[in-house]
Amino acid sequence: MRDFEFQNGTKILFGKDQEQYVGRESTRYGKKLLLHYGGGSIKSSGLYDRVVSSLREEDIEIFELAGVKPNPRVSLVREGVIICKENNIDLILAVGGGSVIDSAKAIAAGAKYEGDVWDFYTGKNSVSDCLPIGVVLTIPAAGSETSAGTVITNEDGFYKRAMGHNNLRPKFSILNPVLTYTLPSFQTACGITDMMAHILERYFTNERNVELTDRLCEATLKTIINNAHTVLENPTSYDARAEIMWSGTIAHNDLLSTGRVGDWASHDIEHEISGIYDIAHGAGLAIVFPAWMKYVYKHDINRFVQYAHRVWNVEIDPFDLEKTALAGIKKTEEFFRSIGMPISLTEVNIFDEHIDEMAKKGTERGPLGNFVKLYEEDVRQILQLAK
Amino acid sequence: MRDFEFQNGTKILFGKDQEQYVGRESTRYGKKLLLHYGGGSIKSSGLYDRVVSSLREEDIEIFELAGVKPNPRVSLVREGVIICKENNIDLILAVGGGSVIDSAKAIAAGAKYEGDVWDFYTGKNSVSDCLPIGVVLTIPAAGSETSAGTVITNEDGFYKRAMGHNNLRPKFSILNPVLTYTLPSFQTACGITDMMAHILERYFTNERNVELTDRLCEATLKTIINNAHTVLENPTSYDARAEIMWSGTIAHNDLLSTGRVGDWASHDIEHEISGIYDIAHGAGLAIVFPAWMKYVYKHDINRFVQYAHRVWNVEIDPFDLEKTALAGIKKTEEFFRSIGMPISLTEVNIFDEHIDEMAKKGTERGPLGNFVKLYEEDVRQILQLAK
Repeated sequence: MRDFEFQNGTKILFGKDQEQYVGRESTRYGKKLLLHYGGGSIKSSGLYDRVVSSLREEDIEIFELAGVKPNPRVSLVREGVIICKENNIDLILAVGGGSVIDSAKAIAAGAKYEGDVWDFYTGKNSVSDCLPIGVVLTIPAAGSETSAGTVITNEDGFYKRAMGHNNLRPKFSILNPVLTYTLPSFQTACGITDMMAHILERYFTNERNVELTDRLCEATLKTIINNAHTVLENPTSYDARAEIMWSGTIAHNDLLSTGRVGDWASHDIEHEISGIYDIAHGAGLAIVFPAWMKYVYKHDINRFVQYAHRVWNVEIDPFDLEKTALAGIKKTEEFFRSIGMPISLTEVNIFDEHIDEMAKKGTERGPLGNFVKLYEEDVRQILQLAK
Repeated sequence: MRDFEFQNGTKILFGKDQEQYVGRESTRYGKKLLLHYGGGSIKSSGLYDRVVSSLREEDIEIFELAGVKPNPRVSLVREGVIICKENNIDLILAVGGGSVIDSAKAIAAGAKYEGDVWDFYTGKNSVSDCLPIGVVLTIPAAGSETSAGTVITNEDGFYKRAMGHNNLRPKFSILNPVLTYTLPSFQTACGITDMMAHILERYFTNERNVELTDRLCEATLKTIINNAHTVLENPTSYDARAEIMWSGTIAHNDLLSTGRVGDWASHDIEHEISGIYDIAHGAGLAIVFPAWMKYVYKHDINRFVQYAHRVWNVEIDPFDLEKTALAGIKKTEEFFRSIGMPISLTEVNIFDEHIDEMAKKGTERGPLGNFVKLYEEDVRQILQLAK
C-alpha cells in the first residue's frame, strides 16, 4: 500500500426532498449566488422553482448562467467567470449532472484567477483559491458532486482536458434519488457505465497489497451491477435509484484510490472520442473499456482473474487462469450491452478515418495510463479493437 | 435506504514517517497546543521526541497533559479543560489510541463550555463549539481518529458513557502503520475485535435495501479477518498492518452507517462490563458479541445467513437457513478465540455476582439496541449466555 493523503469534506444530504435545504446550506457561504445549470429540464420538472424558492427564503441574491451542454465548453465557463468577478459572487450552485458541476468548478477556479481559466487545464497554472461550490445532483454518473476533478472541452481544437484540486470539492451536495426517476434509460445507463468506469480505473493498479480498497471497489461494482437492471426496468424504484446514486458518489470520492495508483487510460482515450464526436461520455467508456481490457489483461492475469471471480462470480479455473480472466472481460462487455450501451465504435458511426488522429492527439502530451503505459501505437490498436 | 447526512472532513496522512508533518498540520490552527497522551510508551519508542521536534520547528508552544488510561476518566478530562481555559489553548493534539483521542475530544468540548464537561455525557447539554483536535494514532482500534464520538468513564459510580458531535471529528489524523509494530499481541487483537465490532454494530440493522453499505461492511470485515493472523504472527508486516489500520478507520468513520440505523447494544453492554471491571474494551466485545448474536439471530435469520455466507464463506443450506446462520456465529466466536481473545466472562474472572447489577445499570436509561430492543431481563440473559 502506498502512502497517501485523503480528505473529502463534502457534506452530503441524501434522500427525499433534500433540495428544500439548499437555501440553508448555501447561506453559510454568502448572499450572492451564481445558479448554474443546463437546459429546461430542471424547469419543467419543477426543481428550478423549488431551488429558487429555498434560496429566496434565505434572502440570497441569485445570478443565473444556464446553457451547460454535455462535454461542457470553456466558452461558457469564461462567461461565468466574468459574471462572478463583476458581481462579487460568493458561491456557485450547480443544479444538474457532472457537466454542470464540472463547469461550476471551472468557474469557481477562474473567478479567483487573473489569467485565462484554460491555463488550469493545460497545466500552465494550478488552482490555489476558488469560490465555494454547492450541488443539487440530478444525474448520478460523474461523481463530480464530491470529487476534486473537472473535465472541460475547449472548442478551439476540441481538446477535452481534466484538472483537479482538493479545494474544488463541493462544500455540500444534495442527492435526492427521486430526482433521477425521470432520466431517460440511455442516460441512466451512461451514468451506470461512467461510475463503473471510475471504479475500474482505480481497480486496475500495479500496487500490491491493497486488499481493503480492492474489496471496497468490488463491493461498489457489485451493487451497481445488481441494481442496474432494476432502475432501467422500474425507473421509480426508490431503493435501486438510491443504491445507484450513492454508489456513483462512492465510486469517485477518492476513498477507493487510497493507497493505490489507478490507470485512467480508458478515460483519456474516451476523452479523445467524445472531444471530437460529442458522444455521451458513458457510451464512449462502454466502447473503450472492454477493448482496453483485451489489450492489457496479460500484464497481470491474476488481477483480471480476481476481477472476474469477485465481481462477476466467474468460477476460477486454476488450470486456465487466462480463460477465467477473459470470461470476466466478456461479462463486462455483455453487461454494457445488456443495459443498452454501444460496445463498438461502428455502432456510434465512428469509422477508421479518425482513429489515427485520436491516437496521435491523445498521446501528444506523453503516454497514457499507469497499469500499462500506452503509446500512440497502443492507443491505435485499442481503438482498432473497439471498432 | 434511510435519508441521511454525512460529512467527514478529517484529513488523513497515511504511511511511513507521516508524523514528521504534525507541526505543519498543527500550525494551521494556532501556536498554543495541548499535547495529550498516555504513559511512557511514546517516550521509549522515540515518537514523543519526533512529535515535539516537528512542533517546535513551527514555533508551537506546547502544554502537556499525560496519564490517560484505558477507559479514560473524567477527572483527567477536567484537568485538561482547566489547562485549556487558563492558557487559551488553540489545538489539542492526541498522541495515542482511542482512549487518548476520546479524552482529547472531551477536553476540546469542555474547553468551550461553562458547565461541567460530564453534562455532555449525561445528555444534560450538547456540544456546540469545541477546540480543534489533531491526532497521531498509535493503536488501530477505536476509530476515534475520524469519528464524531467519545466515550468517557466517570469514576464516581463507574459510569462509562458515550457522546458525539460532528465538530468533534479531528481536523487531521496521522496514521503510520510502522508505529503499530510494537503493539503487544493482546492489544493488537483487542483492536481487531473493536473494529470488527464497529462494523457488526452497523451491519445488524432492520433497514431493508442497504446493499451498498452491506457490501462495504462485508469488504472491510473480510479484510480485517484476512490480515489479523498475519499481523499477530508477523508484527512487522507493513502491508498487513496498513490494511488493519486503514480498515479500523473505515470501520468507524460513519460511511458504513449511511442510510441505515445500527444496533449498538453490544457496545452498551460491554461498557457496563468494562466500566466495573476495567477489562480491555476489545476483550469485552469478544465476550458480548457472540452471546448477543445467539440471543437475537432469530429476529432476522436471513441477515445472519447473508453474514455467514458473505463474511465467513459459509455455504448456504437452503433447506436449513438456521444452521447456516448459527455457523456464522460459531465462526465469529472461533475467530475471536483464534486471535487470543477471551470469549466468556469466566475467562476474565467475572462471575454471577455482578450480572444483575450490570443488566440493571445498563438499561436504567431505557432499553438497549435497535435491531432488537433489549430490556433488563434480555441483557441479563445475554450476560448469562456470555458466562
